[in-house]
Amino acid sequence: MRLSDLGEFGLINLIRAASAKYEDPGRIPWRQILLGIGDDAAAWQNDNRIQLATTDTLVQSVHFDLGAITWEELGWKALAVNLSDIAAMGGIPRYALLSLALPAQLKVQDVSEFINSFLLLAAEFGVALVGGNVATAHNIVITVTIIGCSKGKNMLERSAACPGEQIAVTGYVGLAAAGLEMLKGKTISDPNARNILRQAHFKPVPRVKEGQILIEQGVRTAIDISDGLVADLDHVCESSKVSAKINIEQVPVHPVVTAHFPNSRELALSGGEDYELLFTADKATVARARQALGCPVTVIGDITKDELPTRVLVVDSRGTIIPYKKGGWDHFKNAVSHTEFT
Amino acid sequence: MRLSDLGEFGLINLIRAASAKYEDPGRIPWRQILLGIGDDAAAWQNDNRIQLATTDTLVQSVHFDLGAITWEELGWKALAVNLSDIAAMGGIPRYALLSLALPAQLKVQDVSEFINSFLLLAAEFGVALVGGNVATAHNIVITVTIIGCSKGKNMLERSAACPGEQIAVTGYVGLAAAGLEMLKGKTISDPNARNILRQAHFKPVPRVKEGQILIEQGVRTAIDISDGLVADLDHVCESSKVSAKINIEQVPVHPVVTAHFPNSRELALSGGEDYELLFTADKATVARARQALGCPVTVIGDITKDELPTRVLVVDSRGTIIPYKKGGWDHFKNAVSHTEFT
Repeated sequence: MRLSDLGEFGLINLIRAASAKYEDPGRIPWRQILLGIGDDAAAWQNDNRIQLATTDTLVQSVHFDLGAITWEELGWKALAVNLSDIAAMGGIPRYALLSLALPAQLKVQDVSEFINSFLLLAAEFGVALVGGNVATAHNIVITVTIIGCSKGKNMLERSAACPGEQIAVTGYVGLAAAGLEMLKGKTISDPNARNILRQAHFKPVPRVKEGQILIEQGVRTAIDISDGLVADLDHVCESSKVSAKINIEQVPVHPVVTAHFPNSRELALSGGEDYELLFTADKATVARARQALGCPVTVIGDITKDELPTRVLVVDSRGTIIPYKKGGWDHFKNAVSHTEFT
Repeated sequence: MRLSDLGEFGLINLIRAASAKYEDPGRIPWRQILLGIGDDAAAWQNDNRIQLATTDTLVQSVHFDLGAITWEELGWKALAVNLSDIAAMGGIPRYALLSLALPAQLKVQDVSEFINSFLLLAAEFGVALVGGNVATAHNIVITVTIIGCSKGKNMLERSAACPGEQIAVTGYVGLAAAGLEMLKGKTISDPNARNILRQAHFKPVPRVKEGQILIEQGVRTAIDISDGLVADLDHVCESSKVSAKINIEQVPVHPVVTAHFPNSRELALSGGEDYELLFTADKATVARARQALGCPVTVIGDITKDELPTRVLVVDSRGTIIPYKKGGWDHFKNAVSHTEFT
């Protein structure tokens, strides 16, 4: 069997199962682990504090195309996607490690722009670059690790959603995926719209402060929307052993997407990389969180009891079931279809 | 200018200088940093404990060749080189993150062997795999991050060497580089020697316990020998602003290397990847450390006051200066010469 048959999530499950064989729950470090493989970040108890760590990799020609993204945007994005994982825990990012595998013929000027943009965003979020690794490679691979801590005694998890809770999202969804369609060639004549779409795709703003506010307001369940609204809600449902019902008409699609993309609903449901936070909580908590947050918050549906095989049901206001593609991205399975086109 | 002109250490200096511009020493996290970019691991104060973090990347065709290394060996080595960085701090490794960029056509069986070997070594050193990332890529890139803590209030650093101190190394040097020569085609008929050489190159045993013992015995300066004996001693000298004099006849070359490699001294001085610890301390402390350590410890020379431009002087017992190639590996500069051969 090949990785292309197993798929990305199959590989993660294989690693998790193998890892479980070596766990020794009575011993440090296993005794301290609060969240291992499978959440947005790992978490463990460290004296009085919960420590968080997350890592994310960007691979040239898979995650980005140097013909489209600038080095400045790449430096931002490489860090932003990691900050978003800490945001999804409601945590505080603190220290970053940066691993660069780079071709030797790259221009120093380009790499400098990458570094400066990375550091600018890091400083904005109070993150210090403390180390990393540089190595030569044929193809660019950037791996960022962020280590942080919890805001208080709690953190946001994927596995705490309960039936009856509302499902809410910050900001808008579908914008980053629409940006990708534009970058792939779709003509958008309005320069303002072009700018919004490009920013959304290349310079997402991680919801770090918002994640911390959610924790303060008593929210316990969240995920960042990296794979896509439905795909990430599906991750929450799977981890929490619940199902979900969302109303397509309530999903906050950005006006730029509605105006320029006939497939705006599909982009909103299945497009990834928005890096907004999806969270669940009881009605009063969601209302409180909405008050406290300085960004748009939209209730899009409810958590229901486990209704397998349906994890996520999408309906319209008349109750009609809307079919959807779950979306998301399976690295190894997609990669196969890439190979077929080569 | 290209990275190939700047070189690996030039790039690290560029990142360090850029990073310094964003430091805000009064603020967390900068206020807590004890060691940033440039030591074996980053270190910061965290409540009562020093936290350590390190990351290292293995790139296919640069760091390893799948025609030579087995998946089982690769899983070991990917973790071992990182554990060695924690060993060089005298620290305790605790949590690992594993980022895998892999071609989709890889066999699941091979990746499984990698994972199991990685986890077996992790368990042996009390390290839990808590997360990571998987992505598709044309070429394998493996990035491991380890987070740990100090044994007590101190750690081993590169920058604490003082004139008059002895220089000592654990175990033997040159074995891993000799192993590489064998793997590249040099015939070694003795199967026992072949085995020792292969193990040294592919399955180095990180000196984690030894690093902790050094701390307990009062040693303050160490580095792991990854770039090569002279190159790594040079790093210590540069960080500590001192020079060093070593006696070639005292350098512990493994008998297998002496027996089979006419260039054994060169391998010992300039060959990398031994993952032994080089440390400096006053005579009494070195004697105490040797007693406490369960491995060979050899005094090879002394730290002298800064005698620039000579950082590391190699002599024989008669005082004759032995010329040497500093060795070590510059990723981007070497990469250029690779390109020239392609």
